[in-house]
Amino acid sequence: PVDGRQSERALAIRRGVCRRLRAEGLATVPEVTLPSGRRADLVALCPKGGVTIIEIKSSIEDFRADNKWPDYLMHSDRFFFATGPHVPPEIFPEEAGLIVADPYGAEIIRGSEERKLAAATRKEMLIRIARAVAHRLHDLEDPEALAGGF
Amino acid sequence: PVDGRQSERALAIRRGVCRRLRAEGLATVPEVTLPSGRRADLVALCPKGGVTIIEIKSSIEDFRADNKWPDYLMHSDRFFFATGPHVPPEIFPEEAGLIVADPYGAEIIRGSEERKLAAATRKEMLIRIARAVAHRLHDLEDPEALAGGF
Repeated sequence: PVDGRQSERALAIRRGVCRRLRAEGLATVPEVTLPSGRRADLVALCPKGGVTIIEIKSSIEDFRADNKWPDYLMHSDRFFFATGPHVPPEIFPEEAGLIVADPYGAEIIRGSEERKLAAATRKEMLIRIARAVAHRLHDLEDPEALAGGF
Repeated sequence: PVDGRQSERALAIRRGVCRRLRAEGLATVPEVTLPSGRRADLVALCPKGGVTIIEIKSSIEDFRADNKWPDYLMHSDRFFFATGPHVPPEIFPEEAGLIVADPYGAEIIRGSEERKLAAATRKEMLIRIARAVAHRLHDLEDPEALAGGF
């Protein structure tokens, strides 16, 4: 259960993370649905097609309620938790990377192990990411797009 | 040289094409830069990762000025010209598909031959498409993204 304040915090963390990753040459896409049906909070794509998943945890409780991150490991080359400066960093597992963010930027506290996605999984992720964000932009540019056609 | 009116026409055609392709399950992305540096007017992505390029020609002159479409063939599984109802369809080469659009939708007048992109080219296109549209959405959501970081 996400209260308004928590959700605002999560958005602030997300903004800072996106800024930092963009500065590092990554393209970020929020809310990408994985093949399992779960939603990754944030996915980042490097110029060579490397896939990073970032799961945002705005509080201790938020982290404790999560049991889905092993699913994210299967769909990314690198996996990070991202949190705010008010959350103790030691609660996060060492197998995952860790980012601490405020609304203006972020610091990468711990790098992520790199796995390497199988080519077919990478292709599936690239298609998902591209289509999800394309639909979102199209909806913004032409809100009646889905009603159209002749 | 694109005058204001021509450009408005091209946008109207694009809108109709995007609506139609969306209805067919494709995700569309305008203005994608290809590895050659040329810009495709519109790229569409099917759920399996098939890449369609659509080149918009809003007038006879616009079509005649174009010598770059063979480049598009090398980066797509399917290639279409899209035009408006005021342009005679017979000016377009039969090797390409043809779409006639108004601002509300579009009709596919002629299908496109299907080539099949090499896996490496498809991967490169998927990355380009995803990153281009992700950056565009990020710029809308956080206009100061590129100025940020700490």
